[in-house]
Amino acid sequence: MTDGFTPFRRLAIIGLGLIGSSIARACRQHGLAETIVAIDRDAEVRARVTALGLADVVTGDAAKGVAGADHVIFCVPVMANAALAATIGPHLAPGCIVSDVGSVKGSVVKDVAPHLPESVHFVPAHPVAGTEHSGPDAGFAALFVNRWSILTPPEGTPEAATQRIRAFWEAMGANVEIMTPEHHDLVLAITSHVPHLIAYNIVGTAADMEKVTQSEVIKFSAGGFRDFTRIAASDPTMWRDVFLTNKEAVLEMLGRFNEDLLALQRMIRWGDGDGLHELFTRTRAIRRGIIAQGQETAAPDFGRTPAPVPPVKANPQ
Amino acid sequence: MTDGFTPFRRLAIIGLGLIGSSIARACRQHGLAETIVAIDRDAEVRARVTALGLADVVTGDAAKGVAGADHVIFCVPVMANAALAATIGPHLAPGCIVSDVGSVKGSVVKDVAPHLPESVHFVPAHPVAGTEHSGPDAGFAALFVNRWSILTPPEGTPEAATQRIRAFWEAMGANVEIMTPEHHDLVLAITSHVPHLIAYNIVGTAADMEKVTQSEVIKFSAGGFRDFTRIAASDPTMWRDVFLTNKEAVLEMLGRFNEDLLALQRMIRWGDGDGLHELFTRTRAIRRGIIAQGQETAAPDFGRTPAPVPPVKANPQ
Repeated sequence: MTDGFTPFRRLAIIGLGLIGSSIARACRQHGLAETIVAIDRDAEVRARVTALGLADVVTGDAAKGVAGADHVIFCVPVMANAALAATIGPHLAPGCIVSDVGSVKGSVVKDVAPHLPESVHFVPAHPVAGTEHSGPDAGFAALFVNRWSILTPPEGTPEAATQRIRAFWEAMGANVEIMTPEHHDLVLAITSHVPHLIAYNIVGTAADMEKVTQSEVIKFSAGGFRDFTRIAASDPTMWRDVFLTNKEAVLEMLGRFNEDLLALQRMIRWGDGDGLHELFTRTRAIRRGIIAQGQETAAPDFGRTPAPVPPVKANPQ
Repeated sequence: MTDGFTPFRRLAIIGLGLIGSSIARACRQHGLAETIVAIDRDAEVRARVTALGLADVVTGDAAKGVAGADHVIFCVPVMANAALAATIGPHLAPGCIVSDVGSVKGSVVKDVAPHLPESVHFVPAHPVAGTEHSGPDAGFAALFVNRWSILTPPEGTPEAATQRIRAFWEAMGANVEIMTPEHHDLVLAITSHVPHLIAYNIVGTAADMEKVTQSEVIKFSAGGFRDFTRIAASDPTMWRDVFLTNKEAVLEMLGRFNEDLLALQRMIRWGDGDGLHELFTRTRAIRRGIIAQGQETAAPDFGRTPAPVPPVKANPQ
C-alpha cells in the first residue's frame, strides 16, 4: 500500500469504453494525472468523452495522442493490441510506462512487447472488475474499489515501473496481485472466461427451443436463468477476443467442466440423490468465502430489491 | 385480476422455509386469511416462527394442523409431498383447496392427488421466485410481487377452485399463468433447473483445481464466477429433489445445452470469431426482453452497489 501517489504528468488512455472511462473518472477524482489524454478511433465515443468532460485532450490520432505521455494504457479488445502497439511504438517517450487492462495476458505480452522501444517499460494489468454495460457512459470512478487488479510484468521490467503501476491501481481503490501471464490466464479461464462461455451458451440454447416460447423463457427467468443473461449481455467483441486469445486455457477448463457435468448428468439419470446433495452442500462454502472477502454482498439478490408492495386488495368480511 | 379477495377462514402452511414464511408474511400484510396455522416438523423452525409472529397457531403435527382448514399449502421439498399427503389426506375438511409451491409439477400431481379425498380440490402452484437463502428468517412479504406463479390444475379440478387460487396469488402481487404439469416441467427445466445445475457444476469444478488455489478463485470471482455462486448457494435438499423428480426434462435440456456447448468449443478451437460474435450478439436481445418485462433491473450489477470511495491518496506536488 502507498500513502501518497505522485500523479502522472501526462496519462494517455486508448479506448474510452467501460474500463477506460472508469479509469479517467477515477484519475480525475483522485488527482492521479496532471493531464488526461483520451484517444478513441470512434467519433461518437470522442463526442461523449468531450461532453462528459472525462479528459483534457480528446483525439482520434493514437500516434499523436501518446506523444510526451509518461503513462499509456491500452483499453481496447485484446486482439486490437498488436496493431495499436505497432502504430504508437515509435512515438512513445523514453521512460514511459505502457500498460493495458486486457482479460488475457499471455497474448498481450506476445503482441505488444515486440513493438515497444527499449527505453519504454511494459507492465500489463488486468482489473478484475466490470459490468455488463459498455461505452463511455457506463463507467464510474468506484468500479475498481475493493476489486483486484493483476499485474503481469514480463522479465526485464524494472521493479520501480511495476511498483509505480501497483501504486496507481491502489490509488484507485484496487488490491494488487502480481503473477505470471500464464498463471493469470489459467486462473481467469476458470473464474471468468468459462463462466461467460456457459452463460452465453445457455442463453443461446434457451433462445433456440421449439417447445418453449421465447416469451416463456423471459417470463419465468426469475427461476435462475435471469442471472445468466446478465453475463451474456457483456460486450461481444471483447469476449470474442478473449476466447480466441486464451484458447488453450479455456479449452482445458472447459474439458474439466464437461467431465464434471457428465458425472452430474449420470447422477441424475441413476437417481444418486446423495451424490447430488453432497456437491450442492460443498458449493455453499465457496460462496461464503467470496462474501467474507468482500467480493460479493450477502443481500438476497435472487429477489432483487423488493418491489413496492401493491395496494391491499383484500376485502375482509 | 381481482379487485377484492375474500380471506380464507383457516390457512394451513406446511413447511415454513423461505417460501412458506414469505406466504405467511404476505397473508398477514394483506389480510388474506383469518387464521394462519404454521406446521413444521422442525422444532427450531417452529420456535423462530413463533418468535417472528408469523402465525396464529404453530404446530409440529400436520394431521391436527390441517383440520378445519379451507386452504392447505405444501411448502416442502418435492420428494416429501407423497408421505405428507398420505398423512394429512384423511384429516382434510370437505371443500378444502390443497396447493403447493414445488418447482416440479408432474411429480406433485402424481404423488399428492391419489391421497386426497374426493371432496377436496387440488390446485398445484409454483411461484417462480426465491432467493439463495433458506429458512423462516429469509422470507419477506414482497417476494412474489411482479413474479409469476404457475398453476397446473389436474383434469377434474373445479374452475372455481382454480380461480380462487389465482386470486390468492394475485392478492400477494404475483402474475398468474395456467399450464399443464408437463409443459411446466419443460419450461422450468430450461429457465431454472439446468441453470442451477450448471452453476453448481462450475463451482464444483473450480473447487477441485490443483493448479489454481481456492483463494485465487475467491479473490478473482468478480470476473463472472461470483454470479454462479449465488445460485449454487441454494438449498441442497430442495434442488436434489428437483433433479430427481424432473429427470426426463432436465436430461433433455441438458442434452441440448451440451450439443450447443460442443459447437462453441469447436468454434474456439478452430478460431471461428464470426460464429462467436454472432452468438454473443444474439444473447443480448433476450436480456433486453427480461428487463422490459420487469423480471430484472438494468442496474450495472456486475459491479454491485458501488462501494464508498476511499480517502484520496494522491499527493500532488
